[in-house]
Amino acid sequence: MAEHIFEILAVTRNSDGTAHIAPMGLRQRGELWLLAPFRPSRTLDNLLRERCVSVNASDDVRIYAGSLSGHRDWPVAACRQIDGFRLTEALSHRELVVERVDDDRTRPAFFCRCVAEQNHRPFAGYNRAQAAVLELAILVSRLDRLPADKLDAELAYLQIAIDKTAGERERTAWDWLMQRVNDHRERHCA
Amino acid sequence: MAEHIFEILAVTRNSDGTAHIAPMGLRQRGELWLLAPFRPSRTLDNLLRERCVSVNASDDVRIYAGSLSGHRDWPVAACRQIDGFRLTEALSHRELVVERVDDDRTRPAFFCRCVAEQNHRPFAGYNRAQAAVLELAILVSRLDRLPADKLDAELAYLQIAIDKTAGERERTAWDWLMQRVNDHRERHCA
Repeated sequence: MAEHIFEILAVTRNSDGTAHIAPMGLRQRGELWLLAPFRPSRTLDNLLRERCVSVNASDDVRIYAGSLSGHRDWPVAACRQIDGFRLTEALSHRELVVERVDDDRTRPAFFCRCVAEQNHRPFAGYNRAQAAVLELAILVSRLDRLPADKLDAELAYLQIAIDKTAGERERTAWDWLMQRVNDHRERHCA
Repeated sequence: MAEHIFEILAVTRNSDGTAHIAPMGLRQRGELWLLAPFRPSRTLDNLLRERCVSVNASDDVRIYAGSLSGHRDWPVAACRQIDGFRLTEALSHRELVVERVDDDRTRPAFFCRCVAEQNHRPFAGYNRAQAAVLELAILVSRLDRLPADKLDAELAYLQIAIDKTAGERERTAWDWLMQRVNDHRERHCA
């Protein structure tokens, strides 16, 4: 059975004290929140060392696309209850402390308790182009496993929402990701 | 050039004093907000008579799906600055007053001024299944114009996000809309 997955931006602290931002799925498990970063990853290393993380909801899809296209420098602010950062522009964020780790060869599972939550800005409503950018981000993260015709078909479908409903941020995010797609095509179809 | 469209829930007041809820695209035009309901529609009639509307952002996609599948009875509360209602469960809402109407045979354009705005609840992050429900709602609103093979292909694509990331609300909304799809298929493929 499926379970609701929130696509959030996880912000962890690097060993040099800087912030690391990564899009990630978040699941609710009773009172706890579950994050399962892939091995190896910076977020995994940071979670094991720092034992805390902020999970941020944003409607700026450039931040999601940026982590796959080398645009990782977004403003952060200090958290309230944990030694870490949140996204300054987040609509809302939660501060989580790791309670338990279930180790796994592929995706260790971090069960976390929420120790702070803030609602910063109103969510103004869904936007189809934002959803299309997130879907493209998922395609980009799987480029090496996708048949070319399937990729083309899904791009054509997603492009419709971009053409109809994208604002400037969504277009920028889409272009960043399409650059990744085009680089991939050049490498494999030359 | 595309412009950002917010998919919101418009709540207008019927002539009998009850609330009417309809999903609709909202565009920003400088200081004003633009709504363009199709002719004929209840929202259009109500806007012309009442000259005000609330636009609500919700993460309960059942409300979006419900307006296409006969589930229209959602809790509303009185607005602050206009004689009308908002969704009780909205994450945020704006109260708009009509400033100008550009008439049109298909979609009259209502340019509205925001007179109140409230942030009720935090947005917890995107969910792919919610986006899939919205896309299915758009397909359902166009069933009579969609070739069967195109419908099947898009459904198969959207189903993936439902299978992977839907919670209970998203599954309910999906099932309501799929009932519409199946009714349509039975009528046309029997």
